[in-house]
Amino acid sequence: MNAQVSPVAASDVVAYMQGVGQRARAAARSVGRADTQTKNAALSAIAARLEAALPALLAANEADLAAGRANGLDAALLDRLALGEKGVRGMVQGLREVAAQKDPIGAITDLEYRPSGIQVGRMRVPLGVIGIIYESRPNVTADAAALCLKAGNAAILRGGSEAFRTNRAIAACIREGLEVAGLPLDAVQVVDTTDRAAVGELIRMRDYVDVIVPRGGKSLIARISAEARVPVIKHLDGICHVYIDDRADPGKAVKVAFNAKCRRYGICGAMETLLVHEAVAPYVLPQLAELYAAAGVELRGCARTRQLLPACGVATEDDWRTEYLAPVLSIRVVDDMDAAIEHIETYGSHHTDSIITEDLTRARRFLREVDSASVMVNASTQFADGGEYGLGAEIGISTDKLHARGPVGVEGLTTQKFVVLGDGSCRA
Amino acid sequence: MNAQVSPVAASDVVAYMQGVGQRARAAARSVGRADTQTKNAALSAIAARLEAALPALLAANEADLAAGRANGLDAALLDRLALGEKGVRGMVQGLREVAAQKDPIGAITDLEYRPSGIQVGRMRVPLGVIGIIYESRPNVTADAAALCLKAGNAAILRGGSEAFRTNRAIAACIREGLEVAGLPLDAVQVVDTTDRAAVGELIRMRDYVDVIVPRGGKSLIARISAEARVPVIKHLDGICHVYIDDRADPGKAVKVAFNAKCRRYGICGAMETLLVHEAVAPYVLPQLAELYAAAGVELRGCARTRQLLPACGVATEDDWRTEYLAPVLSIRVVDDMDAAIEHIETYGSHHTDSIITEDLTRARRFLREVDSASVMVNASTQFADGGEYGLGAEIGISTDKLHARGPVGVEGLTTQKFVVLGDGSCRA
Repeated sequence: MNAQVSPVAASDVVAYMQGVGQRARAAARSVGRADTQTKNAALSAIAARLEAALPALLAANEADLAAGRANGLDAALLDRLALGEKGVRGMVQGLREVAAQKDPIGAITDLEYRPSGIQVGRMRVPLGVIGIIYESRPNVTADAAALCLKAGNAAILRGGSEAFRTNRAIAACIREGLEVAGLPLDAVQVVDTTDRAAVGELIRMRDYVDVIVPRGGKSLIARISAEARVPVIKHLDGICHVYIDDRADPGKAVKVAFNAKCRRYGICGAMETLLVHEAVAPYVLPQLAELYAAAGVELRGCARTRQLLPACGVATEDDWRTEYLAPVLSIRVVDDMDAAIEHIETYGSHHTDSIITEDLTRARRFLREVDSASVMVNASTQFADGGEYGLGAEIGISTDKLHARGPVGVEGLTTQKFVVLGDGSCRA
Repeated sequence: MNAQVSPVAASDVVAYMQGVGQRARAAARSVGRADTQTKNAALSAIAARLEAALPALLAANEADLAAGRANGLDAALLDRLALGEKGVRGMVQGLREVAAQKDPIGAITDLEYRPSGIQVGRMRVPLGVIGIIYESRPNVTADAAALCLKAGNAAILRGGSEAFRTNRAIAACIREGLEVAGLPLDAVQVVDTTDRAAVGELIRMRDYVDVIVPRGGKSLIARISAEARVPVIKHLDGICHVYIDDRADPGKAVKVAFNAKCRRYGICGAMETLLVHEAVAPYVLPQLAELYAAAGVELRGCARTRQLLPACGVATEDDWRTEYLAPVLSIRVVDDMDAAIEHIETYGSHHTDSIITEDLTRARRFLREVDSASVMVNASTQFADGGEYGLGAEIGISTDKLHARGPVGVEGLTTQKFVVLGDGSCRA
């Protein structure tokens, strides 16, 4: 393991990144043509290498952690940086799961005869070269590489500088696995410099990079989106709502509203605002308040909420727009479903929103009219997850509307081309 | 008809466009929720209004043509600007065809039970607000409005300044049709200023515009792509190839290679470079040269081509990269299919490429390995068209990989959201 943190001289970063891009583009052709068996062999070989390299991985990670402590990284960052034996096992398992997934590449759908005699269909194909920019958690290096490879893409991975040594050690295992399977080593490249200019170049290399997937905090993603000249699949806020309708089954309402907030606070699918129809608020809110209090959740409500829950704090306009990612919940009592939908459209982030109702007409309208990546009926917003949706592992959850929306798995890293079959067919 | 060309003062353009955007966003909610019957009623009413307004439309168009002549517009531009009775009939028919198309909105696919008990599927939904920026041809005003409406979107249309009066007259008919159907008048807004700053604002209003579709010359599209902060579905070059394999049926090869070049020269699906396997070149090239000569097509070939066709001109490196859109064809004799694919990858524009072969293995490899929006076997590249593919009318042909690739019809103006149905379901 090289202890030097940035082996590429600052003056050479642009040339270095151009080289990375060129090699990725060339490798993408091989990976795109590789058959399922070869791609799965690579994934299995990488998993085996990571398992065998456990001591080296932990040593590299320890060096990063020591440097992080010396540089005064806060406890949360150090926690995310720490890999541990469990982290390595997680990467190995993730690779094997992706290997076991169906290969979407080459599938032809909707192949139909047209009046002219040609057959027209669509074939699922790789996007090409995918750039992933992420912070801290070094397991992303293996997870992202696996998803990109399975989808037939080359990957350029740019992790956080604090995880530089760990990412290099993981990268070495990936290269060894690619070699075993006979795939080009440049199919997965980990950017070998911590220079920030490398990111600036990566997100502007339109000739070499087809899409950028940033993984990290909101400020990182906003900055990359603003500066990128390459398309970005991005994940911004998850301001998720549960609306308890007056036709809700109260038992389901309480159960789902509690799970949506309290199962995990820090994930994007966690409910941040609870909307309750005025007719059922007097019945369900006190029950929920008791459960939330026991879980240590701070409540902030509208005036009508506070009439029902005297201990509840005041929700301001800012609260409706806040993704707490913490044990805090804003609550609003609404006149009807229209008011709930209006609130969601005004303050929500189009991520995941759920209605609790037994009324079919209300459910149909909510599903149709709420413009979010995931719209749910009688289900917890915490289900917003690629694994739960049956997509397998996910590279992130897109809050964009174009291309990939919601959890993005292997399929989100592909595109479709038209295939046309004729018999010497000419257009009239 | 107001003869004043730009009723919005230059200083007010930004505020004006912000207003247009806000109204479009509000209207998009109504249109997105409108049922199929209402949307089709609007399309039919617009068609009827255009038919009834024929004299007014022709008068407005005549005023634009007169102004264009006075401003010294060239003949090609004036030709594209001229609407005529035929142009009006075309718009009317286009609207009725789009009305007759299937409504994709609300369709739920892949609704499957997951191990947790929830059902997860995808619902097709509108994108929201679509901005169309186009040049000259005023029929785009009606065509684009129809596709956007059918897909449940609001549209902001910015036509060329030379067609300003014609576009205004068409816009009046669209508004009347929307009113008849009870849809908001702001569902289709034609930008009422010729100020270029309006385009700059339109392509940057991320809060109000979900996607921009530019229609026009390469320089317009390149400029918009470079400056836009809103996603762009773009159409750049169509450098299309036909590769005649040594296993080709020579009769089909000659027929398709002639049609691919000569059916129409000016469309993006026209073949620009013919690649021929060396084993069949001595047989097929002289036959083709005779046909091309009769059609007045200028040939430019590689050295091996010119040995077979002494009258053929010289193809330079530039020729392989040129979209002629004219009766000019570059020809290259290649060693084998690998060389053909290599040429297509190096010089092509990933638009439409076709192989002529009777060999199944070659066909399978070509389909899989050529990374273009349309890949064909034994068919003319001129089939690259939404109508021929069964998509109905098209708003353009995308050369992007993300979201929409190839001909873009109504479906390309939609997206999918996840729908989740539970029964008080909570995530473990």
